[in-house]
Amino acid sequence: MTRWTIYLSGEIHSDWRERIMRGAADAGLPVDFTTPVTDHAASDDCGVAILGAEDKGFWKDHKGAGVNAIRTRTLLRNADVVVVRFGDQYRQWNAAFDAGLASALGKQLIILHAADLTHALKEVDAAASAVAETPEQVVEVLRYVTGGE
Amino acid sequence: MTRWTIYLSGEIHSDWRERIMRGAADAGLPVDFTTPVTDHAASDDCGVAILGAEDKGFWKDHKGAGVNAIRTRTLLRNADVVVVRFGDQYRQWNAAFDAGLASALGKQLIILHAADLTHALKEVDAAASAVAETPEQVVEVLRYVTGGE
Amino acid sequence: MTRWTIYLSGEIHSDWRERIMRGAADAGLPVDFTTPVTDHAASDDCGVAILGAEDKGFWKDHKGAGVNAIRTRTLLRNADVVVVRFGDQYRQWNAAFDAGLASALGKQLIILHAADLTHALKEVDAAASAVAETPEQVVEVLRYVTGGE
Amino acid sequence: MTRWTIYLSGEIHSDWRERIMRGAADAGLPVDFTTPVTDHAASDDCGVAILGAEDKGFWKDHKGAGVNAIRTRTLLRNADVVVVRFGDQYRQWNAAFDAGLASALGKQLIILHAADLTHALKEVDAAASAVAETPEQVVEVLRYVTGGE
Amino acid sequence: MTRWTIYLSGEIHSDWRERIMRGAADAGLPVDFTTPVTDHAASDDCGVAILGAEDKGFWKDHKGAGVNAIRTRTLLRNADVVVVRFGDQYRQWNAAFDAGLASALGKQLIILHAADLTHALKEVDAAASAVAETPEQVVEVLRYVTGGE
Amino acid sequence: MTRWTIYLSGEIHSDWRERIMRGAADAGLPVDFTTPVTDHAASDDCGVAILGAEDKGFWKDHKGAGVNAIRTRTLLRNADVVVVRFGDQYRQWNAAFDAGLASALGKQLIILHAADLTHALKEVDAAASAVAETPEQVVEVLRYVTGGE
Amino acid sequence: MTRWTIYLSGEIHSDWRERIMRGAADAGLPVDFTTPVTDHAASDDCGVAILGAEDKGFWKDHKGAGVNAIRTRTLLRNADVVVVRFGDQYRQWNAAFDAGLASALGKQLIILHAADLTHALKEVDAAASAVAETPEQVVEVLRYVTGGE
Amino acid sequence: MTRWTIYLSGEIHSDWRERIMRGAADAGLPVDFTTPVTDHAASDDCGVAILGAEDKGFWKDHKGAGVNAIRTRTLLRNADVVVVRFGDQYRQWNAAFDAGLASALGKQLIILHAADLTHALKEVDAAASAVAETPEQVVEVLRYVTGGE
Repeated sequence: MTRWTIYLSGEIHSDWRERIMRGAADAGLPVDFTTPVTDHAASDDCGVAILGAEDKGFWKDHKGAGVNAIRTRTLLRNADVVVVRFGDQYRQWNAAFDAGLASALGKQLIILHAADLTHALKEVDAAASAVAETPEQVVEVLRYVTGGE
Repeated sequence: MTRWTIYLSGEIHSDWRERIMRGAADAGLPVDFTTPVTDHAASDDCGVAILGAEDKGFWKDHKGAGVNAIRTRTLLRNADVVVVRFGDQYRQWNAAFDAGLASALGKQLIILHAADLTHALKEVDAAASAVAETPEQVVEVLRYVTGGE
Repeated sequence: MTRWTIYLSGEIHSDWRERIMRGAADAGLPVDFTTPVTDHAASDDCGVAILGAEDKGFWKDHKGAGVNAIRTRTLLRNADVVVVRFGDQYRQWNAAFDAGLASALGKQLIILHAADLTHALKEVDAAASAVAETPEQVVEVLRYVTGGE
Repeated sequence: MTRWTIYLSGEIHSDWRERIMRGAADAGLPVDFTTPVTDHAASDDCGVAILGAEDKGFWKDHKGAGVNAIRTRTLLRNADVVVVRFGDQYRQWNAAFDAGLASALGKQLIILHAADLTHALKEVDAAASAVAETPEQVVEVLRYVTGGE
Repeated sequence: MTRWTIYLSGEIHSDWRERIMRGAADAGLPVDFTTPVTDHAASDDCGVAILGAEDKGFWKDHKGAGVNAIRTRTLLRNADVVVVRFGDQYRQWNAAFDAGLASALGKQLIILHAADLTHALKEVDAAASAVAETPEQVVEVLRYVTGGE
Repeated sequence: MTRWTIYLSGEIHSDWRERIMRGAADAGLPVDFTTPVTDHAASDDCGVAILGAEDKGFWKDHKGAGVNAIRTRTLLRNADVVVVRFGDQYRQWNAAFDAGLASALGKQLIILHAADLTHALKEVDAAASAVAETPEQVVEVLRYVTGGE
Repeated sequence: MTRWTIYLSGEIHSDWRERIMRGAADAGLPVDFTTPVTDHAASDDCGVAILGAEDKGFWKDHKGAGVNAIRTRTLLRNADVVVVRFGDQYRQWNAAFDAGLASALGKQLIILHAADLTHALKEVDAAASAVAETPEQVVEVLRYVTGGE
Repeated sequence: MTRWTIYLSGEIHSDWRERIMRGAADAGLPVDFTTPVTDHAASDDCGVAILGAEDKGFWKDHKGAGVNAIRTRTLLRNADVVVVRFGDQYRQWNAAFDAGLASALGKQLIILHAADLTHALKEVDAAASAVAETPEQVVEVLRYVTGGE
């Protein structure tokens, strides 16, 4: 295995993905990152924008969730390691859902969140191989596990 | 299949489980319900109460989550249908995590939540076979799918 | 294995299920049958009847298909043998879909259809262990495979 | 994942595959398409042409279906996303069968059909992540899910 | 686990099944045995007898093999332990095929054959947890593994 | 799920199994226990005793390990929860091997060992949902997870 | 999928593999072939030659079968299509065992044998997508399924 | 399959990996090796070094084991063949755990240990396709299985 594929799931409102990607690039790690669509508006609208308008919010959301699932499920299944980030805003149930999927599929999970979310995330953290508080720690974990030293 | 096993995951702060169980009993449905531990304090403390105290909250939570997982993962794997309830309080990431597990394991999912959570739950709802707003609707779904008429 | 579970999928507009069930009962076969909801109107309306009305036909159908899937997927997964019947009316794509599911899940498949559908069903038939033209032949197959003589 | 593999199953009597392929090429999408044999006569005759003549139509069809299955099952299993097209002619049970296989294998499904087939396809559509009416919509979905923006 | 299910595959021309069943009954073992159809003529003819005559031997055999597979595959999948017997007559390729199936499905395999077949069966024996030369040894193995002493 | 099946793997030189079984019985827990053969001599000799003597120790051990695997693998696969005990004597590699099997099969794991083995067992413990130091703690975990309160 | 991997299992005493490989090369097919070790003496002796001599034929065979399994199981699992050839000499139980493995793993199977083995191979043939009598037919099948025309 | 991936699990206190790697390189074998982190101190400290200090040894070990699992589980799942080495020092339960994982995942196993560990490793050896006593024998096995002659 010369390169690892890392799927970065979860929060889309802070720069955690960029910090991990930049850190990995700076360290020259043999990793390729995949991500969901992180443009919030595009992610919300993709269903109706492509497949036709809906009157009800429920079906607009349903269509969008389906289209996004084509991307996220496929990338998650093809990843070696899944990192899931929880921030302090929004409900982020899709992040926890992804963690459940990844766990059932036998993927190694790294959970990233601030210390004050520990109690709320205890079941998700318990399914993870590592729980980090900063993107830099995730980079260090990736450096260690891919570098072997 | 003469009886169905239904796992009731999620919120533990309202009487939705009782309403579903009572409704199913009143209708004479051929269903057996399983549930996580719904006593909040017991669920939080079980790890340290049984396996020894911890100084740090993180590890107290970790121990508790592990012990609870023995129950929840086993019951979820042995269920025919999984109902996941989301309320308006708390983060409920464990509920979304259970939904992800159930989906990856090929279980049929019913999601139960109020209409105002629709947007936040769109990815979870999209993985479900039915999305209900009231426990009585869940009873009706169970009546229909188990009764065949 | 003292009893076998047989799922009867497909056409709901002729009496083929009754003929198989009656034949099996008359022969005293150790089989339990499971079926989808065979009341056409109930099957079409269950989604909106239970979970709320829809303006668009697409979503009415979508809701109904979801609710029916809770029954059909669960019963299909729990069956030992799956019989799929194709008649000469309607498109019956759900029957062929069920056959694909059953095949991928490693279930033994028996396909039941009149001779004039042979060419159209060749891919489905090729995935089956037996192709019968009459319900009585299906009963005979069940008698042979469960009786061992 | 730098490239995606998309299997195009179903109808072979219109130019929908060409329109999707051309659209994807024009957009420079990182996708590779795989398809069943789309020459109707070759597909019907391949079994007896290669493996020897048959007197009965049933066995001619059976042989052909087997040979085609070597291609279709292998490509379907190796695909990331499966698109299934239903047209208004022929029974197309093999298309619905493929959709069932793909669903059970955990593949992301896109179903493509005209609006007037909605009711007949409701069970198949319910298993899909996206339902499109035109090949151009499929291209847009692929552009969105592979491009991430 | 109060009772074990043992599938007895292979040779149908000697009394090895009876000797194992009688030995297990005499020892009061908590085992239930399942078997293929052991009536050679019935097994050969079942396809055409039930589903219609064939002119070619190949298709007569094909139909019969399909019908028998409904029984054998289902029982094999539902067994805890699979015993496969090889005798000195006939090719018995179906016995070796069953052993391959059982091995891939994670079933525990016991192979039963005379010493002079050792070289020819080396690949099959290597996949087994026990290789016995007499039915009485198989009974002893079953007594030990089910009795726990 | 009215009763749980618990497989008790590992050390056979202390009374930990009896203490768990007695504790569960005293508490009236809805659990059924399964175990490997715990008679050390019988376990070592079963292969050659039943299937014929061997000159080399390697093959005597190989035969015995195979016969024991029929019991242990089958019971482990049929368990809901697997408890693995490590003592301070012997190498107990079979216990760690069982833990690896159980983990890959998605079974919930409880590891039982004294505190001084923590460092040596860190990889095994990390795969467990609970790590206990006494049989009484295991009983308490089983009481909690099966009783739901 | 630009290239297909074809595993050629079975008989090692005729030139069928060479004929298939040459035919595929002549036709420029996008296929890569993998094979077991086809040097009969090397295949028989590899276990004891590498891992140490054995007095008993049974263990010599056992060691050799194990070493060969490392190659054959790995290549079979990594193949897209499995061709199994049965000749008229020897028992060839390993070929039938491979067919069972391949079938349970969901691989597409092509069986190659002379017409006079039809009855003896009926269960194996029934699990195959194609049954050929000559290597040239296998090449034609590969040409058709990989070429798509 | 032009190259094979071999995961080298187990003992980190002798030069067995180097001897296998050098032997394979000298023989020009088409193999790529993957390994756990073999720096004992780094392996022990990685958890707390990256993710924060712990007061208790148990949690220090737990964190380290988790981080190492990201590497070891991923590499083990991506390997074609798994070699597990047992030395005469330390408990090496992680090696036996890896063997259990690999066995359940259907990987071909080669176990490497001195003859005096035979009895203690009998269950692990029984799950292997080859048991070697020297690294040079492992190289020979790899040469044979990858070279096909």
